Amino acid sequence: MNQTKISIPKGTRDFGPEIMVKRNFILKTIQSIFEKFGFLPIETPSIENLSVLTGKYGEDGDKLLFKVLNSGDYLSKTNLKDYQLGSAHLTQKISKKGLRYDLTVPLARFVVMNRNEITLPFRRYQIQPVWRADRPQKGRYQEFYQCDADIIGTNSAICEAEIILMISESFAILGITDYLIKINHRSILKAIVEQLGVPGKENDYAIAIDKLDKIGTDKVLDELKDRGFKVSTIEKLRPIISLSGSTAEKVKLMEDIIGDNKSGKEGLASLHEIFEILDDMDFQITNLQFDQNLARGLSYYTGITFEVIVNKVSVGSVCGGGRYDNLTGAFGMPDIPGTGISFGIDRIYDVMQELDLFPKEVFETSKVLITNFDQKSQKFALRTLSKIRAEGINCEIYPDHTKLKKQFNYADKKLIPYVLLVGPEEIQSGEFSLKNMSTGEQVSINLEGVIEILKQ
Amino acid sequence: MNQTKISIPKGTRDFGPEIMVKRNFILKTIQSIFEKFGFLPIETPSIENLSVLTGKYGEDGDKLLFKVLNSGDYLSKTNLKDYQLGSAHLTQKISKKGLRYDLTVPLARFVVMNRNEITLPFRRYQIQPVWRADRPQKGRYQEFYQCDADIIGTNSAICEAEIILMISESFAILGITDYLIKINHRSILKAIVEQLGVPGKENDYAIAIDKLDKIGTDKVLDELKDRGFKVSTIEKLRPIISLSGSTAEKVKLMEDIIGDNKSGKEGLASLHEIFEILDDMDFQITNLQFDQNLARGLSYYTGITFEVIVNKVSVGSVCGGGRYDNLTGAFGMPDIPGTGISFGIDRIYDVMQELDLFPKEVFETSKVLITNFDQKSQKFALRTLSKIRAEGINCEIYPDHTKLKKQFNYADKKLIPYVLLVGPEEIQSGEFSLKNMSTGEQVSINLEGVIEILKQ
Repeated sequence: MNQTKISIPKGTRDFGPEIMVKRNFILKTIQSIFEKFGFLPIETPSIENLSVLTGKYGEDGDKLLFKVLNSGDYLSKTNLKDYQLGSAHLTQKISKKGLRYDLTVPLARFVVMNRNEITLPFRRYQIQPVWRADRPQKGRYQEFYQCDADIIGTNSAICEAEIILMISESFAILGITDYLIKINHRSILKAIVEQLGVPGKENDYAIAIDKLDKIGTDKVLDELKDRGFKVSTIEKLRPIISLSGSTAEKVKLMEDIIGDNKSGKEGLASLHEIFEILDDMDFQITNLQFDQNLARGLSYYTGITFEVIVNKVSVGSVCGGGRYDNLTGAFGMPDIPGTGISFGIDRIYDVMQELDLFPKEVFETSKVLITNFDQKSQKFALRTLSKIRAEGINCEIYPDHTKLKKQFNYADKKLIPYVLLVGPEEIQSGEFSLKNMSTGEQVSINLEGVIEILKQ
Repeated sequence: MNQTKISIPKGTRDFGPEIMVKRNFILKTIQSIFEKFGFLPIETPSIENLSVLTGKYGEDGDKLLFKVLNSGDYLSKTNLKDYQLGSAHLTQKISKKGLRYDLTVPLARFVVMNRNEITLPFRRYQIQPVWRADRPQKGRYQEFYQCDADIIGTNSAICEAEIILMISESFAILGITDYLIKINHRSILKAIVEQLGVPGKENDYAIAIDKLDKIGTDKVLDELKDRGFKVSTIEKLRPIISLSGSTAEKVKLMEDIIGDNKSGKEGLASLHEIFEILDDMDFQITNLQFDQNLARGLSYYTGITFEVIVNKVSVGSVCGGGRYDNLTGAFGMPDIPGTGISFGIDRIYDVMQELDLFPKEVFETSKVLITNFDQKSQKFALRTLSKIRAEGINCEIYPDHTKLKKQFNYADKKLIPYVLLVGPEEIQSGEFSLKNMSTGEQVSINLEGVIEILKQ
C-alpha cells in the first residue's frame, strides 16, 4: 500500500457510530410505518445508464449528474476531434453511466421494466442514497439518502390520506409534535392564474410562489413581474397570497376566488375528499393545513402536493410529495398515475438533534461490559458472558487484561450503561459487582440478579 | 422528459419486493447479531478520493475501480498532450474520485481520520454496497453489498472466538445448519514453506493453495512448480495438503510437521487459545474445523484466517475473514492490529434459496387486505382499517371500488394472508367475513374476533 494524504471528497460524510444509531432510529421508524401501511421495499442500482437519467431532471439537473468513466482504454473509441469539441461532447464518448440522482426516475424505469410482474396498485418504498454534483455547502451534500414511498396505478384519494397518516404516525414515534403538514392542489394554482386572466402561466406562478418563505411576498411579486405578469394582475394576487386563517376559513375564501373555474373546483373537491377520508379514519387533523401558496418546484406534480415543516426549527421542509399523472411516460408507458412522499432524513435528523428528541436507548448497543481482570478470571468471565447473551441481552467482554480504569473508560465512551466486574473476589464469593454507569451506584449480586437488572 | 430505450447496466440488479424482503431478513439477522456482540455501525461515502483508493488493491484492483468524471468543463485543465498520452494518463487529469471498492480501506481511512474520537478496541460493523468494474458473469456483479464486522486495536484471541460465535448464531437464526467454519493461521503456512526449505515463499504458496477447491491438488502443485518450487519440495507438500481427519487429529499431525519452527508453534498456540476460549464459552465446535489448506488470497492477513462453506451447495465460501496487523499503515498510522469477518450476502441468499430456508413470515408485509366495495362501505372500511392498525397490525385497504375478484387477486399476488370483506351485508350484521388466503377458509366474525385471529 502507498502512503497517502487522507480526506473525503467535499460534500460527502462519514457517519460514525453516534450519528449512525440516530440515523438508523429515524430510518427504522419510517420503514416500520411504511410496512404498517402495506408498502414493499425495492432497491435499484446506484449506477444507471445515462440514457435513462439524462433529460429527466431539466438542463440544470443534467449538469448535476455524476458521470462514471467507461472502463479500460476508454479513449480508444474517440478521436482527436472528440477531444477538441470539448467536455460536453467528449462525455458522450467516454461515459455511458451515471449515479442515481433521485428515486423517482429509477422507480419509473423499474415499473416499466417489470410491468408484467407488478400488480397494480403498487405500493413501494425505497431508502437509498442519491448523488448530485452540487456545490457543497452547509446542509447540502453530494451524497444523501432519500426515503420515498409511492402508490402507483390508482387515482384514489385514500392514497393521499394514507400519506398524511404515515407522516403523522412517523412523527409521533420520532417525538416531533410541533409541525405542520401543508397541503394544496396544483389545479388551485391553475385556477388562480386562470381567474386572473393569465391562463397557462401556472408553472411560472408555481416557481415564483415556491420561494415565498425564503424571499417574502414583495420579491415573489417582483419575480412574477419579471415573468411577464402585469401590475394589475399582481395587485389582485396580493390578497390571495396573504389569505390566512384556519383551513376551513381559507378553503371558504378560496371557493369565492375560484368561483366556477373548472380545475379550481376539482382541486377543492379533491381536498374535501381527503379531509372526509381522514375524518372517516378518525384522524385528528390538527397538524394539517391548507396552504394556497404551496407549490413544490417539481413540474411533474399534477394534483395534490404536500410539504411538512417543523415549527420553531429553521431547516426548511422535512417531507415533500404529491400526485403525478404520468410517472412512466418518458419510458413509453403513459397514463400511470401515482402519489408519493419523500422524507428528508438529514433535515429530520437536524430537527431531532436541535430539539433533543433522540431517546436515550438509541445509543445503547451493549447493555453491559464484562471486565477482563486476568487470565484466570477471564475463563469465568467468558462463561458469564455466554450466559448473559443466552438471555438475549447485548453484551461484550473487554478483550484484553488491562487496567480497570481503561475498561471503565471504554464503557463510558461507548455509553454502555452497566459494567460487570469479574475478578478473583467475585469468583470466590459468587457475587458480582454490577455498576450502573450513569448513577455510579454499585451492587453486589448473583448472576440471576444481574440478569434481572439488565432485563429491566 | 425524453422517451428512451430502457435497461440497467450489465452487472447491476434491480431488487423487487420478493427479493428485498428476503435480503432484508438476512441483513437484519446479521445486524442484530453484530449488535448483540457490541459492534457499532458506521457508514462511509460511496465516493472516495482516488488518492485514498489507488494502490490499495494491487494493480488488478486499480483497474477495477470505477472512476467518476470531474464535474463541469473537466477538459479545461487538460491539453492535447494529455489526450495523446492515452486513457491511463488522461484519467489522472479528468477524474479525482472513485467508487468504494470494499469496506476495509474506508475503515482504515475512517480510523485514521477519527483516531482522536475513537476508543480502542473499536468494534464496528458496516453494511454498504461496493462497486467493481469486473466483467459481469453469473454470480459476479459490478455492484454488491458487503457486510463486515471488525475489531480494531487488540490482539486478543477473544475476537476470533467471538467472530466464530457470531457466524454460528447468525446461521442458527437463518436456518443454515450443514456448514463448516474453516480456520487456519498464516504462520502455519509460513512454517510449512520454511520446513520445506523455501522460506519467504508463503505468499506464492498461499496464492496457489487458495485454488485447491477449484482446481485440485495436482494443478496446485503444477502452479507451485511454475512459481519456482522444486519437484522434491513439491513431493513433500503432497502429504501435507492431503492431511485429513478431525481437527484434533490434523492439529496433532501438523505439530509433527512443524516441529520446532517458531512461527508454526505460534500459529498452533493461537489456534489452541481460540479453541480454549470457545470451550470456556460453552460453544460446541462441531462446525469448526482446522484446515491447513485454507489460505485466503488477500495478502494483508497475518494471523488467523476463516472461511465458511455450506455443505451440499456449490456457491463457494459464504463468509471470510481473518487477522491483520497493519490495517492503517498505508494512512500513516502503523501497527494497529485487527480481526474481521465479511458475510457474503448474495451467496447466503443463494444458499437459502436453494435450501428453501426463508421463513414464510418474511413475505408478509400487510397481514390483511380490507376490500373496497362502494363509496358507502368505504366509510365503514376506513374506520375498520384504523382500528386494526391501532392494534399494531400491518393492514391496508384496496384504494379503488372495483371487482372483488381483482381485489382478491391483488392480495394473492402480494401474499397477504387474510382478506377482510366489508360490504353492505357486513355493515348491517356487524359481522365481517375474514378469508384465510392459504386455506381458503372463510369465517363470519366480529371485529374483536378478527383482531384476535390477525394477532396470532
